[in-house]
Amino acid sequence: MFSIFETEIIVRPDDIDMNNHVHNSKYLDYLLMARYDQMRKDYKVPMEVFVERGYSWVASTTHIDFKREIKLGDKIVVRTQVNSFEGAQVKVNFWIMKAETNKVAAEGWSVYTLVSVATGKPTRIPEDIIKHYTV
Amino acid sequence: MFSIFETEIIVRPDDIDMNNHVHNSKYLDYLLMARYDQMRKDYKVPMEVFVERGYSWVASTTHIDFKREIKLGDKIVVRTQVNSFEGAQVKVNFWIMKAETNKVAAEGWSVYTLVSVATGKPTRIPEDIIKHYTV
Amino acid sequence: MFSIFETEIIVRPDDIDMNNHVHNSKYLDYLLMARYDQMRKDYKVPMEVFVERGYSWVASTTHIDFKREIKLGDKIVVRTQVNSFEGAQVKVNFWIMKAETNKVAAEGWSVYTLVSVATGKPTRIPEDIIKHYTV
Amino acid sequence: MFSIFETEIIVRPDDIDMNNHVHNSKYLDYLLMARYDQMRKDYKVPMEVFVERGYSWVASTTHIDFKREIKLGDKIVVRTQVNSFEGAQVKVNFWIMKAETNKVAAEGWSVYTLVSVATGKPTRIPEDIIKHYTV
Repeated sequence: MFSIFETEIIVRPDDIDMNNHVHNSKYLDYLLMARYDQMRKDYKVPMEVFVERGYSWVASTTHIDFKREIKLGDKIVVRTQVNSFEGAQVKVNFWIMKAETNKVAAEGWSVYTLVSVATGKPTRIPEDIIKHYTV
Repeated sequence: MFSIFETEIIVRPDDIDMNNHVHNSKYLDYLLMARYDQMRKDYKVPMEVFVERGYSWVASTTHIDFKREIKLGDKIVVRTQVNSFEGAQVKVNFWIMKAETNKVAAEGWSVYTLVSVATGKPTRIPEDIIKHYTV
Repeated sequence: MFSIFETEIIVRPDDIDMNNHVHNSKYLDYLLMARYDQMRKDYKVPMEVFVERGYSWVASTTHIDFKREIKLGDKIVVRTQVNSFEGAQVKVNFWIMKAETNKVAAEGWSVYTLVSVATGKPTRIPEDIIKHYTV
Repeated sequence: MFSIFETEIIVRPDDIDMNNHVHNSKYLDYLLMARYDQMRKDYKVPMEVFVERGYSWVASTTHIDFKREIKLGDKIVVRTQVNSFEGAQVKVNFWIMKAETNKVAAEGWSVYTLVSVATGKPTRIPEDIIKHYTV
């Protein structure tokens, strides 16, 4: 019912930490990058549309299992898939893949909440957005 | 049995994102900062000691619930508490607090795995380390 | 005529790069942190006041000489001093010091331009601001 | 005598700061990314070769003029060109371009110093490296 979409990420030297691999918090940055990219390219509702309509997305929960280190020079693909909608929230599963080996570097899920910028409160995800996301 | 330790964090302008609050991946950086600080000041086993003994810690799982935004100028306190040991792993609970209101900005837990640098494999946490951590 | 002000910075693990010292772009983040801190504590004109008055500061030029590496655990003090004002611009000299040895880790200068948020154009620095900065 | 080489950079959401444009220290990260990329693709001497030979590059000076803001979604191209060699140092000019308009977002130069990892001291750039860089 919900497609898996992909975004390639190029690791930058500033992503590497003292352990000579991608720093663990950068995985969340890669995930966010992928969601932005896929909102535009796959769901056809870029973030700007949410902003114009007075909405903002915030991360409410993230669960991530780190499986393999990522090194500078590795090719990375971030896959995400909507899992479910409930009220103001969408749950999204993700996999951060090493492209050369097709092995999972990290996997997990995030819950994002749609917020009205005017009130700062969670707001039910509109039907037309759910429709765009149901591809 | 396991104490809760605290580390104050000063929010930097480069931690703030386009939504005008602390970027969500920075919460993991604050947690890491707190663990380093508490390893030295509270457990009396700074990271250098692990490195000298041929060990490294890696994050295996992180679960985080984002509760409240953090703004530039907010005073932050990161509390962590060992939850349990199992083989090569330690589970640590954490709370990222807004100091002025004593409200939780984020909470969750991480599992860290002790790795032998020589073999790259998980290695059972030595008894003397567990003893240092059991305060 | 222009005082030198100081801000202590605590190095975080996420500031360290693959060379096991503070990443070079982080020096600019330390400088920005110091300017924010000193605007509030020393000039008594915090950034919020500029924002309320419809202004924003942007960096126009930065020149930095990297002299010594900074390691995790080093105590850092960032000193800045206004050098001169000209129209919409202020030139600020800075020194990033290693506190234990009082040696310079990096030094340089930045030119910041005051911009009107409404027009996006540079705007002459008001006399009352120059007065606050002339301490 | 020295060619200008190019690297495309994709702006990530975590590069954007509270002013809703790419944070100024990230320009140095883009430059570093470009140098790494061009060392491999254009000079045919990737960083790993330096490491294998017991060398490391450190930035000694960076001078950067910020000309235009970069927004999320902008296409960026970083151009760099060797300017000159002297002893252990190479001076490199750079331009961070907005690809759609071919306008300069920032420009400047950096001096990098070759360091022997064993001694920690600057070391004369070997002739074969200069030859690889002279394309």
